[in-house]
Amino acid sequence: MKKHLILSLLLVAMSGTMCLAQTSVIEDFVPSTKNQPGQEYPMVNSQGYARFRIVAPEAQNVVVSLGLGGQSGGTVLSKNAEGVWMGTTAGPMDEGFHYYHVTIDGGVFNDPGTLNYYGSTRWESGIEIPAKDQDFYALKDVPHGNVVQILFPSPSTSTSRKAFVYTPPGYDADQSKRYPVLYLQHGWGEDENAWSNQGHANLIMDNMIADGKIDPFMIVMTYGMTNDIRPGGGGFRNFSIEPFETVLLKELIPYVDANFRTLSDINNRAMAGLSMGGMETRTISLRNPDVFAYYGLLSGGTYSVEDLQGKPQVKLVFMSSGSKERPEGVINAEKALKEAGFNAVSYVSEGTAHEFQTWRRSLYQMAPLLFK
Amino acid sequence: MKKHLILSLLLVAMSGTMCLAQTSVIEDFVPSTKNQPGQEYPMVNSQGYARFRIVAPEAQNVVVSLGLGGQSGGTVLSKNAEGVWMGTTAGPMDEGFHYYHVTIDGGVFNDPGTLNYYGSTRWESGIEIPAKDQDFYALKDVPHGNVVQILFPSPSTSTSRKAFVYTPPGYDADQSKRYPVLYLQHGWGEDENAWSNQGHANLIMDNMIADGKIDPFMIVMTYGMTNDIRPGGGGFRNFSIEPFETVLLKELIPYVDANFRTLSDINNRAMAGLSMGGMETRTISLRNPDVFAYYGLLSGGTYSVEDLQGKPQVKLVFMSSGSKERPEGVINAEKALKEAGFNAVSYVSEGTAHEFQTWRRSLYQMAPLLFK
Repeated sequence: MKKHLILSLLLVAMSGTMCLAQTSVIEDFVPSTKNQPGQEYPMVNSQGYARFRIVAPEAQNVVVSLGLGGQSGGTVLSKNAEGVWMGTTAGPMDEGFHYYHVTIDGGVFNDPGTLNYYGSTRWESGIEIPAKDQDFYALKDVPHGNVVQILFPSPSTSTSRKAFVYTPPGYDADQSKRYPVLYLQHGWGEDENAWSNQGHANLIMDNMIADGKIDPFMIVMTYGMTNDIRPGGGGFRNFSIEPFETVLLKELIPYVDANFRTLSDINNRAMAGLSMGGMETRTISLRNPDVFAYYGLLSGGTYSVEDLQGKPQVKLVFMSSGSKERPEGVINAEKALKEAGFNAVSYVSEGTAHEFQTWRRSLYQMAPLLFK
Repeated sequence: MKKHLILSLLLVAMSGTMCLAQTSVIEDFVPSTKNQPGQEYPMVNSQGYARFRIVAPEAQNVVVSLGLGGQSGGTVLSKNAEGVWMGTTAGPMDEGFHYYHVTIDGGVFNDPGTLNYYGSTRWESGIEIPAKDQDFYALKDVPHGNVVQILFPSPSTSTSRKAFVYTPPGYDADQSKRYPVLYLQHGWGEDENAWSNQGHANLIMDNMIADGKIDPFMIVMTYGMTNDIRPGGGGFRNFSIEPFETVLLKELIPYVDANFRTLSDINNRAMAGLSMGGMETRTISLRNPDVFAYYGLLSGGTYSVEDLQGKPQVKLVFMSSGSKERPEGVINAEKALKEAGFNAVSYVSEGTAHEFQTWRRSLYQMAPLLFK
C-alpha cells in the first residue's frame, strides 16, 4: 500500500517535471512584495518563478539559495555585459513566503533588494510568491488592531524580555471589555518577530474580525528558545524546556494579565506554535494542564490519546501540516483523538511544505475554533 | 577671527592625528551591541576602534564603508590564510551608532554579523561604539513603556499607514490619566523605525521617567517622506511638504487622539525632528501655528525671530547640533530668539557629528523642557 503511494507520488512528480520542461516562462514579472522600498528585484511572475539581480561586477560566482520548489538546490546567476548577475529559478516555487540568501565568492550575504526576516538563527532575505489565497493576509481598508512591543521583567533570566501583543481593533475604545489570549510560538531559528513580520498574524486577525469570522482575541508572541541555542549559545542539542516554561508561565502570562485587559481563566487561554514552537506547546501544555484549554500544533507534531487521557479540560486540539510534509500524521492523530472523545481537528495546507504559507493558513483555520 | 578659528581647528586636528599615530590599539575588543544574536564580529574596543570580519574566500576585494571618525574613507580588509577578510579602522570612531555597508567585488552588501537599520533609503548594517554616557539609553531594570505599532487609515494616500506610539509605563494601569504627545520625525532616508531602533527613544523615556527627570508623555513616530522620495520614487528634489502635512494633521493626529488617552490641546502637543525631520517640523509648525506649542529641531536648522513674530503661543524652541556639525547656528539662533523674548534653548552634543548619538542626547536634553 505504502509502496504504491510512493510510486504514485513519483509518477506525479515526474509528470510535473515534464510539464515544467514544456512550460515557457511568462514575462509578467513584478517586484516581490517583500522588497525594500523602491527596489525592483527580486521579481516574481504569475507562475511562481522568481528572478534575481545582484550587482557585484568583480565577483567570480553568485548563487541564490532558492531554486525549484523553494526548498533546495539553488539558482546560479550569470553575469551580463554590464557586470550584473541575473538568474531565474528553474521552475515555479511554492506559494507564499521563503527565506533565502546569496552566496558570493564563497561568502553568505543577503540580497540587498529585500527586507530581512529572522530565520535559521540569522536575519535572511525574504521573498513572497503570490498565492491564490493571499487575500486573507492582505493589508486592507478595515479597522486594524495594534502590535504592541512590551518589555517585561524576567527575574529568571535577569533581564527585561521582549514580546509582541496583538490587541484587536476596538481594544482602546471600549475600556470595559476583556479578551481571551492565544500564546503563539515561532519555530526553530526564528524569533518573536516571525508571526507578525512574515506570518502577518495581525492582518489575518484584522481581516477575520472585519469579516465577522471570529470574535476578537489577543495574541502574545515572545522568543521561545530561552536558554539560547543560537550561534554562540549551546546549540540545538542543549535546548531545555524549563527556562522558556518559567518565562512563559511565571513571568509573561502574569505580566500580560496584569497589564492588558485579558480574560485570564483556562477557558480563555490557548497555546499554539509552529514546528519547534509546536513541540514547546505540546510539552508545556501537558506539563501544565491547568493553564491552557486550547492547543495548536502547526507542523509541530501530534497529541496521542495517552497524552490527553484524564484531561477533560482540553477544549480543542488543532494539528496541521503542509501537504508536502507528512500530513498523514495529523490526519491519523485527529482520527484517534476523535474516537477517544476529544475535540480534535486536523488541517492540511495544499501544495505547501514546512514554511510560512502553511502556518498562515493554519492560523486562519484554527482561529475560528478557539474560545468556543 | 574666523581664519584664526579654522587655523586652530586644523592644529587641533593635526595634533589629534599625531596622537593617533603614537597610540597603540588596545586588544580589549568585544562584540558590538548591534550584532545579530550570537555573532562575534564586528567588534569594538574601549578606544572606539572597530574590527570587521567577513567570510568570502574567493572574493577579490572587501571594503567596509566605515573608517576613521566614522564619517568617510573606509576600511580595506585583508584576506588571511583561512580565506577570511579582516581589518580594523585606522583610528577611533565617534561614540554612538553608525550605519555602514560592505563593498564586495564592487557590489554593496550588509555585514552578515550585524542587525540592519533603515538609513540612506536602505536597510544597512549598524555598529555601536560604546559611549561614556551610554547609561541614559541602556536597557535597565525599570518599568518599561510600550512601543505600539498602529495602522491608521489614510484616505489621502489610499492606504493604511504605519506609526509607532510610545506609551509610558503605567499607561494601561491608570485608565483615567491622559498624556501630552510629542510627534517625533526621523531624517532623510530613514523611516518610522529609526527613533526606537537606533535612537532607543523608548529606553531614554523609560529611564528618565524612572529617575523622575520628566513627567510621562507619549511619542508618536511615523514615516515623513510621504510623497515617496526613495529609490523608484521621485527623488529628493521632488519632495513636497503637503502630502506629509496632510497625513500628520488630518489623519494621524486625529487617529491618535481618538484611540489613545492624549491631552489634545496645543499646550500638550510638541513636534520635533532630526535633520530633514527638523526641516519638516519647522515648515509644518510655522504653517500651522495652532497645532503645536513646543518645537524641536535636532541637527535640523533654526527658527529666526521673524519666523516666530506674533506667535505668543510658542512655549519652547529647542535647537541642537553635534559639535562636529556647525553648532554656531543653533547657538546664535538661541541668542537672537532669547533677546526677542522667546523661550529658546540650544544644545551642542560634544564630539559627535550628524549622527544618532547627537539625536539621542538631544532627545534627552529636550524631554525635560517639554510640556512645562
